[in-house]
Amino acid sequence: MKQAIEQQFQALQDQICLALQTIDGKGKFVQDIWQREGGGGGRSRVMCNGEVIEKGGVNFSAVFGEPPEKMLVALQLEQADFFATGVSIVLHPQSPMVPIIHMNVRYFEMSNGVWWFGGGIDLTPHYVVPEQAAWFHWQLKKVCDQHDSSYYQTFKQWADDYFYIKHRQETRGVGGIFFDHLNTQKTGKTQPQLFDFVLSVGRAFVPIYAHLVELNRHIPFGEREKKWQQLRRGRYVEFNLVWDKGTKFGLDTDGRTESILMSMPPQAHWEYNFTPPAESPEAATLTWLKRGIDWINLLPLRSAVEQT
Amino acid sequence: MKQAIEQQFQALQDQICLALQTIDGKGKFVQDIWQREGGGGGRSRVMCNGEVIEKGGVNFSAVFGEPPEKMLVALQLEQADFFATGVSIVLHPQSPMVPIIHMNVRYFEMSNGVWWFGGGIDLTPHYVVPEQAAWFHWQLKKVCDQHDSSYYQTFKQWADDYFYIKHRQETRGVGGIFFDHLNTQKTGKTQPQLFDFVLSVGRAFVPIYAHLVELNRHIPFGEREKKWQQLRRGRYVEFNLVWDKGTKFGLDTDGRTESILMSMPPQAHWEYNFTPPAESPEAATLTWLKRGIDWINLLPLRSAVEQT
Repeated sequence: MKQAIEQQFQALQDQICLALQTIDGKGKFVQDIWQREGGGGGRSRVMCNGEVIEKGGVNFSAVFGEPPEKMLVALQLEQADFFATGVSIVLHPQSPMVPIIHMNVRYFEMSNGVWWFGGGIDLTPHYVVPEQAAWFHWQLKKVCDQHDSSYYQTFKQWADDYFYIKHRQETRGVGGIFFDHLNTQKTGKTQPQLFDFVLSVGRAFVPIYAHLVELNRHIPFGEREKKWQQLRRGRYVEFNLVWDKGTKFGLDTDGRTESILMSMPPQAHWEYNFTPPAESPEAATLTWLKRGIDWINLLPLRSAVEQT
Repeated sequence: MKQAIEQQFQALQDQICLALQTIDGKGKFVQDIWQREGGGGGRSRVMCNGEVIEKGGVNFSAVFGEPPEKMLVALQLEQADFFATGVSIVLHPQSPMVPIIHMNVRYFEMSNGVWWFGGGIDLTPHYVVPEQAAWFHWQLKKVCDQHDSSYYQTFKQWADDYFYIKHRQETRGVGGIFFDHLNTQKTGKTQPQLFDFVLSVGRAFVPIYAHLVELNRHIPFGEREKKWQQLRRGRYVEFNLVWDKGTKFGLDTDGRTESILMSMPPQAHWEYNFTPPAESPEAATLTWLKRGIDWINLLPLRSAVEQT
């Protein structure tokens, strides 16, 4: 089974990279194959200075061997081999009008028989367009509903809680879905059923992002919007380096730094105590960066979304 | 005693800000007075877009009250009030030829009688000039030697270990001195003696930085050096957000975010797998970002330094 998962994840990386190159129209992914000393390795693929994507990483890895000490402690195990495979994506667009997107699917297995899936998709618009955020959540709900009617609500709330920048009291973006440690015990599903769900999430990524890019890529912008984009990228950096468990764990356990930090934006900006003017689009965006927004039932957005 | 410390730290902030304005010649500090809900507050002072300093923060704070839960756990105490005061500085210069500098002095006291001093100065040149790094360490040694002949070696090594970016296997810069939890038990010194040492460190900051600014501020640079500066600022961000205990503790315990993150650079840049060309000044700099360099005895630098 783990071979099948690894192969499918690898194929997913291929499909996504090809599709993103088509969407971008100019940028090409450059591949970096790396090996892990303790076992396994990966294929990091990075696009720089595309037409749409300023810096984007699509990373595949499949690693195995003795787990780092911290992992054994966390799992309360004395000794066991592990296997982990996944695809991880962060895209930083050129235009501040196009949202940043993140997608991840992963599978983890221990030699003692413990296994689980994790993953999710979440969106970080520099400028929140509520109709688009609602549409995005609607797409995720459709994917989830095909597998279990409880998934969307559970995983949406999980994303709200996970992608939260505590020291700013802001969410990273408009959320999405996040899930981890999904196994039979926790979900009542078989391993193939859960794999099927995770693949659906991975395959939903391209059409969702393609639509959001198409809606926003031709919107004009100027210096003001670029500055705001860089300030929001600063928040993205803060979340990833201070709060993101995956990033911290990777850096703490001698993961491959350049692959882990592919998620960093090309440029970020910090300005002491920056506050956008009242009633500006920037201030409006901040009002949407809250946990617990019920995007699916946000009237009158719902009727607009249902027509799409 | 704690009132005296608070007052002297406040005076130190005043002196440093005035001196930095003189050095800069154009930029002015803007003050932000803030209060902490649980007790105390601070004066954050920020200079933006000066002639020399692109973004600099000189923060004073004196806070007291019930400690955050995490602090009690760390100190193995069930209940106690705390008092903490300090001055904290990070200066990001406009020119990549001028180093970033950080200085901090702090005093901490618990209602159960426990107290300590902490602090240090460290230097982060975008381009390491070994003679200047040696001169910098020589100045710190002179300050330390006035108080105890063992201080420099101990605190220099502490800085090497503290300002280490583990996931990059690089030091943040050329180090300096770092010390924490200094009390009578640990050092054999009285509280006034330790306070005297800490004030010496605080007062050494301006003449040291003034000299380094003067040496480098008129060196011409171009796009290449600006890009390298922003990449090194990216590393500064990585250290502060991933490894700096003070930053993490502050963000984790609802400290004042904007004051804690005054240390962030105005602009930072990340490029996947960036490697400077062999034998470039950038590559040379990387060879100096190692722990354990004996700057004081680095011949033939020593003779050059001793003449200054």
